[in-house]
Amino acid sequence: MSLPELPAIDLTEIVASLQDGILLITLRNSRKTNSFTEKMSHDLIRVFQWGDADDRVRVILLTADPKERAFCAGADMEEVIKGSVLLGRKEDSEDEHRDPGGQVALSIYNNRKVTIVAVNGHAWGSGFTSLQLPFDFRFIWAGAEITLPFLRLGILPESTSTYLLSRLVGQSRATSILLSNAKMRPDSPNLSSLYQDILPNKEDVLPAALSFAKTIAATSAPVSITYTKGLLHHPGMTIEENHLLDSRAIKRRGASKDGEEGLKAFMQRRSPNFPDTVSGETSWYPWWKSRDVNQPKTKL
Amino acid sequence: MSLPELPAIDLTEIVASLQDGILLITLRNSRKTNSFTEKMSHDLIRVFQWGDADDRVRVILLTADPKERAFCAGADMEEVIKGSVLLGRKEDSEDEHRDPGGQVALSIYNNRKVTIVAVNGHAWGSGFTSLQLPFDFRFIWAGAEITLPFLRLGILPESTSTYLLSRLVGQSRATSILLSNAKMRPDSPNLSSLYQDILPNKEDVLPAALSFAKTIAATSAPVSITYTKGLLHHPGMTIEENHLLDSRAIKRRGASKDGEEGLKAFMQRRSPNFPDTVSGETSWYPWWKSRDVNQPKTKL
Amino acid sequence: MSLPELPAIDLTEIVASLQDGILLITLRNSRKTNSFTEKMSHDLIRVFQWGDADDRVRVILLTADPKERAFCAGADMEEVIKGSVLLGRKEDSEDEHRDPGGQVALSIYNNRKVTIVAVNGHAWGSGFTSLQLPFDFRFIWAGAEITLPFLRLGILPESTSTYLLSRLVGQSRATSILLSNAKMRPDSPNLSSLYQDILPNKEDVLPAALSFAKTIAATSAPVSITYTKGLLHHPGMTIEENHLLDSRAIKRRGASKDGEEGLKAFMQRRSPNFPDTVSGETSWYPWWKSRDVNQPKTKL
Repeated sequence: MSLPELPAIDLTEIVASLQDGILLITLRNSRKTNSFTEKMSHDLIRVFQWGDADDRVRVILLTADPKERAFCAGADMEEVIKGSVLLGRKEDSEDEHRDPGGQVALSIYNNRKVTIVAVNGHAWGSGFTSLQLPFDFRFIWAGAEITLPFLRLGILPESTSTYLLSRLVGQSRATSILLSNAKMRPDSPNLSSLYQDILPNKEDVLPAALSFAKTIAATSAPVSITYTKGLLHHPGMTIEENHLLDSRAIKRRGASKDGEEGLKAFMQRRSPNFPDTVSGETSWYPWWKSRDVNQPKTKL
Repeated sequence: MSLPELPAIDLTEIVASLQDGILLITLRNSRKTNSFTEKMSHDLIRVFQWGDADDRVRVILLTADPKERAFCAGADMEEVIKGSVLLGRKEDSEDEHRDPGGQVALSIYNNRKVTIVAVNGHAWGSGFTSLQLPFDFRFIWAGAEITLPFLRLGILPESTSTYLLSRLVGQSRATSILLSNAKMRPDSPNLSSLYQDILPNKEDVLPAALSFAKTIAATSAPVSITYTKGLLHHPGMTIEENHLLDSRAIKRRGASKDGEEGLKAFMQRRSPNFPDTVSGETSWYPWWKSRDVNQPKTKL
Repeated sequence: MSLPELPAIDLTEIVASLQDGILLITLRNSRKTNSFTEKMSHDLIRVFQWGDADDRVRVILLTADPKERAFCAGADMEEVIKGSVLLGRKEDSEDEHRDPGGQVALSIYNNRKVTIVAVNGHAWGSGFTSLQLPFDFRFIWAGAEITLPFLRLGILPESTSTYLLSRLVGQSRATSILLSNAKMRPDSPNLSSLYQDILPNKEDVLPAALSFAKTIAATSAPVSITYTKGLLHHPGMTIEENHLLDSRAIKRRGASKDGEEGLKAFMQRRSPNFPDTVSGETSWYPWWKSRDVNQPKTKL
């Protein structure tokens, strides 16, 4: 797997390649057990934004080298001690600080493509909150240790994990995961519903995720995925409002070139070949308004 | 089981009967593998609205003939190809279209009576989104195939399923169900928490659901059910607001004739015989405002 | 375990003691099978509020005597028949009534300390809704019967259970639990995800909960717990808003004395000794506005 189609961008903490519609990202700062650095956050945001914009990308898949000890060892403690942006620079005010783990989480969660993570090693701190929770699908090695050291460090779970985890698995499990300091395994009852699949060997995780990714890339209309994610993340406030939203979306998609092709392929019992592109869908999507958190003037 | 008490309404795609407080609805367009047609949507909405209004109805139970291949085979493809209302008529604007699956879902979800579905065959597309998710209780045959072909057809999951599924089982499982094209079985970890019971034989599904329905009809105060459903579907925005809502409801119900009868029956260790009626509860319920989605002028 | 440090307050329905940062509360109106009385609600609210305010308290743990038949037998029927405040006094209007079970639930759910319940006997009615759902962690005896008699009594589930249960385990299970009159066991699929641990013997429940409580009290920064609970209960309305909230919180905590001590203890591989206090954290927390439900003028 090579990188020919990816524009040359200065990536130092990750490797990225594009093949068969799948943008594969591999964490690679092995010197630091794949710990989460400021530069890693920049690299990830840049590649996720590139994958969001490029119509060749159908699925974005994040993984690590299974030979590493950890998938991601959490925030890089050297940088934290130096006073990096990870916990906020001294010169930033409380209003100005933007948690890098949360910035990465936003670039994944708000992505218009399907996102998948293949966790083939241990995951500590932001290796769970930032690099697992915002994804659409999570595959993991059964032996992975999940450890959340936030309360023991006198800080708290970040990367929008308090928002995401309650929505993903309910507040009972979210509370248990975030308020207890226990070391967890993927098959723990509190965690297991987060995972699409739990694989016995480290080496099996990426192939399982890749095979799943290929099926999605080959069979699902990209704009349909974008709309479905939009409705899952921004449903109507009431069932009536959601009915108005999905009625409009289904009318729009049913009359689209994709809708025509999907029906034809179904009748002819062949694979569909969808012509519509995510970047071309600009008239209605997104139908919600987001706050621009990167404006320094955006305050609580 | 016969239909003597049900008003003569022109039902062609379903059969309905009323006995012991249970309105039993059976899908019956076997010519089309119980596929979801425009007429079926009209029939279902009519009967669910009738069941909502008639005080003799305590529980509404939907099922199909277990000898059919499918409980419901999803949207009728002949109608879709003809350009029926199912995906939106050509002459309708995006603002005017109202998804028929969503219209059915609203008539079930907003029903003031307990609703139960007994899925005794395969369920594809709207046979899952429209005819399972909006119910209070779901019983299913273990061998049922659940298949969601939306993304493969270039459209998207409809019938308010993006709203309902996230609320019912959390966003992690909802995303997995709606974004993957996999064929699922009821015992799949993503689906299983949706079901009250999963029965090994097709023929066992309706009897299990009926027995459950009879217990509810015989022991639960209808107005108490209506209030509980109202609070589950329209909880306070905060715990404080919910406390104000359920304090008012409990004061109201405790002082009602039902409350008096419930207490007496409890002390006398006999079955209660509740006098209050849902149609008679007009002064406070509903305590929320809904948008009238059937007004053509109601827009996003 | 004795009560030396607890201020003398007139508790008749519960016993309370403080040791190693754990405020242990034991229900004790054995004459009435630990039924939920008006006085019990006053006692519980008083002690939970005291535990919220006193910085020596890290964890609040509620239990009962395992030799009792029930952990809590629900609303005291004698008081209900007399027309006590439990279902609303005759002289109160619908707007004025405040459900005592809900008042207790608010004092637990809004508590800034970790709350744990050890259910070592049967739990009926408010013994489930008021005395289990609002806690952060629930431990229970496998043989406990959970029975919700509300609909059979012509009333409805109270104590903000319609709000809490949907959030805790999703609306599918919440509906099933609250709308069916079935007797449930903790290992029922609808209930099991509510519990941190299910113990085979009554006598094992409190020790398991205490051991868990001690670990939290010894290792977690109290203010970090308060912030994490705040974010779980009051997340941003959107992921962007939550990112602004937890960015501010992490900057604040990272720069705090606790943050400094947490990092030092981590580097020195020793247990942390956090100096910051919950009562001292007054400038930002709480960041949300709550309605004062105790004001008689607060209406829906």
